[in-house]
Amino acid sequence: MTKPRILIQLDTDPQPSVFDSVVAVDAGVEQLFRHSGVTAEKVRDLVYGAIFTRGPDELKHTAIFIGGSDVAAGEALLVQIKRTFFGPMRVSVMMDANGANTTAAAAVLAVLKHVNPAETTATVLGATGPVGQRVVRLLAGAGAAVRVGSRRIDRAKDVCPVVAAAVPGAKLSPHVTASPADVALALSTSQVVVAAGPPGACLLPAEVRRASKTLKVAIDLNAVPPLGIEGLDARDKATQRDGQLCYGALGIGATKMKIHKAAIRRLFESNDQVLDAEEMLEIGKTL
Amino acid sequence: MTKPRILIQLDTDPQPSVFDSVVAVDAGVEQLFRHSGVTAEKVRDLVYGAIFTRGPDELKHTAIFIGGSDVAAGEALLVQIKRTFFGPMRVSVMMDANGANTTAAAAVLAVLKHVNPAETTATVLGATGPVGQRVVRLLAGAGAAVRVGSRRIDRAKDVCPVVAAAVPGAKLSPHVTASPADVALALSTSQVVVAAGPPGACLLPAEVRRASKTLKVAIDLNAVPPLGIEGLDARDKATQRDGQLCYGALGIGATKMKIHKAAIRRLFESNDQVLDAEEMLEIGKTL
Amino acid sequence: MTKPRILIQLDTDPQPSVFDSVVAVDAGVEQLFRHSGVTAEKVRDLVYGAIFTRGPDELKHTAIFIGGSDVAAGEALLVQIKRTFFGPMRVSVMMDANGANTTAAAAVLAVLKHVNPAETTATVLGATGPVGQRVVRLLAGAGAAVRVGSRRIDRAKDVCPVVAAAVPGAKLSPHVTASPADVALALSTSQVVVAAGPPGACLLPAEVRRASKTLKVAIDLNAVPPLGIEGLDARDKATQRDGQLCYGALGIGATKMKIHKAAIRRLFESNDQVLDAEEMLEIGKTL
Repeated sequence: MTKPRILIQLDTDPQPSVFDSVVAVDAGVEQLFRHSGVTAEKVRDLVYGAIFTRGPDELKHTAIFIGGSDVAAGEALLVQIKRTFFGPMRVSVMMDANGANTTAAAAVLAVLKHVNPAETTATVLGATGPVGQRVVRLLAGAGAAVRVGSRRIDRAKDVCPVVAAAVPGAKLSPHVTASPADVALALSTSQVVVAAGPPGACLLPAEVRRASKTLKVAIDLNAVPPLGIEGLDARDKATQRDGQLCYGALGIGATKMKIHKAAIRRLFESNDQVLDAEEMLEIGKTL
Repeated sequence: MTKPRILIQLDTDPQPSVFDSVVAVDAGVEQLFRHSGVTAEKVRDLVYGAIFTRGPDELKHTAIFIGGSDVAAGEALLVQIKRTFFGPMRVSVMMDANGANTTAAAAVLAVLKHVNPAETTATVLGATGPVGQRVVRLLAGAGAAVRVGSRRIDRAKDVCPVVAAAVPGAKLSPHVTASPADVALALSTSQVVVAAGPPGACLLPAEVRRASKTLKVAIDLNAVPPLGIEGLDARDKATQRDGQLCYGALGIGATKMKIHKAAIRRLFESNDQVLDAEEMLEIGKTL
Repeated sequence: MTKPRILIQLDTDPQPSVFDSVVAVDAGVEQLFRHSGVTAEKVRDLVYGAIFTRGPDELKHTAIFIGGSDVAAGEALLVQIKRTFFGPMRVSVMMDANGANTTAAAAVLAVLKHVNPAETTATVLGATGPVGQRVVRLLAGAGAAVRVGSRRIDRAKDVCPVVAAAVPGAKLSPHVTASPADVALALSTSQVVVAAGPPGACLLPAEVRRASKTLKVAIDLNAVPPLGIEGLDARDKATQRDGQLCYGALGIGATKMKIHKAAIRRLFESNDQVLDAEEMLEIGKTL
């Protein structure tokens, strides 16, 4: 008899995410163990409980999901969880704190539908935040030249070597985006722009966007008005605006959800997977 | 394939109620997401998780249950949850903090078995508490004239307009019940008395009850001795005592449980229901 | 229709044990209600929720598991839970805080495979801890003479009357084990030694073990190096070393797990069982 599929939901927030739980159940999880307030310091025993309870052939029916609104805390959990594994004593893990990985993967998947990355320059606005950094990583990994935009040039400069270490050969350049003129300069030779700033902050005025003669694809990941790219609608999904293909946060939501569910299902195919941004983009490509 | 029935149990106590969880499972809930320590301030993200994860046609397979020992806290949750819904983005909700709604509905259902409410005057003792107020509301809504009894007349007077606002045309009168003589006066022209006071407080002495020449039905909702109505037994269920039909807390327990389970099942019939006291009484009538 | 099998997992730690949860699910539990931070003072309402929700014939489909790393806290929970039951209003309970009962039962089961307890003297090292005391109880209950070993003689002396009260006719003697010579003296006439000390503390040097001319069976319950018995391997399972049959913590792990799962299954056979160390040893004998 096959063992029930168990997902151990490790959430760093005070309440476990209902969103992540519903998606898990709808992706076929049979028993969901929900934990909130999880810290890297205290995660070891929870991981032991995952790896010491089923035989080697059955470990693939147990998996771990890392969630919560704090992406850095989720990353710290992932590091500690991987450290706790040894030899074949491991289970598959998916990290999607704040939806950062599924969101970044869905955004980049939308980009790849419309341009050849090897011939593309992309500007990422709000590139130093958790979603922004992942978008940079995935675009660079696909071969695009990426402008790492931040209102503070020192932050943009800090992110470049971090991404370069993860993506050998990445074509990256830091770019200050403190003023509309700064943004206009970046867009003047970009085919793609992705806005990954905080909710409710407009990073790209409409007239700057329209003024770009090279821009083909504009993606905004902010669902809370005012949007990150002025003139878009959160529901935009390859919507033509001023000769540009536009996507809003809700417009990439369906793809994000598909990636999320497919990733959960993938967890139960073997016991040795770590699903981070790159793996979720690959999963997205197969959908 | 039908989506599993998910119930999101939002409990305001430090531990989620086992009682509510068992009833949910026995009413057919397949996946129970249990939350404790839930506050109105922090409930929004949990509701978003409920409404943003399934398609419009599938939202009826997700529902919310509000529980916990603090009825006021549960009511505050319900207000906030309803505020978070918008348009078709909603799921059905049942509020039964401290069992107040199912208890009140079961009590009034017992009353309605024996009298014609339009021709009935009912006295509710302990009418200012959460269960008492609900009993007043349901009796008034059924057409009975209701005496709102409280040891403090100012409290009784405060409750009347609150209930009147919810039940247009309600026939209500505040009634002080500080002494046995006060209670005797109320009962001298009442056909029904319901005691909804705190556990272990006797609100109606046996001789006062026996002295009433009009009383047909006496219902006590207190299961902890001493009972709220002297001379009754908590297990009384339409038990004849001194020519009166008597019910104790355990005696209405079976009906309460049936209403509770039926209400849980009802939640999954559509995504737009709010099951409060009135809805539970209606559900009770169909059993 | 049969009611789903519900296990109420009451854990005294801040996070509920994943280990206990996986084992529960793999033993056939259909709905697992996980509670953490449970205290004896607040457990009553959780127990009421277990016993007041299903009919007498169905109560056997609900059960309680007590876990967490603090054995004393788990014992206090068990006392309070049993106090809350009355008449037929009860569900079966298994207590296995820190795995103490399943570990002790598995260790003693290994002993009984190789010796006739009525003709055996056994030394328990670290006998005053929660696992050690249980090993003493089970060995004494099986008829063996038991040396209750502790680095402090006063503690050893305190444990003897506690065990004797639980096991009438128990043959017990306190034994100081402060120095290797003390241990050597105990082992000089023992056929069995069980080391139940804290993780990472060596209680029995290799040369003392080898010097015993009577020792047949050596069991170490410590999985963290350095082991409690020098020269053993945590994976030893009836492994011959120096003419002695040796077991390590992992070596008895498979039996411990079988007892744990069988005990969970046993819970759902009736509603009146209390599964503590003795019951788990009996369950182990049937496997």
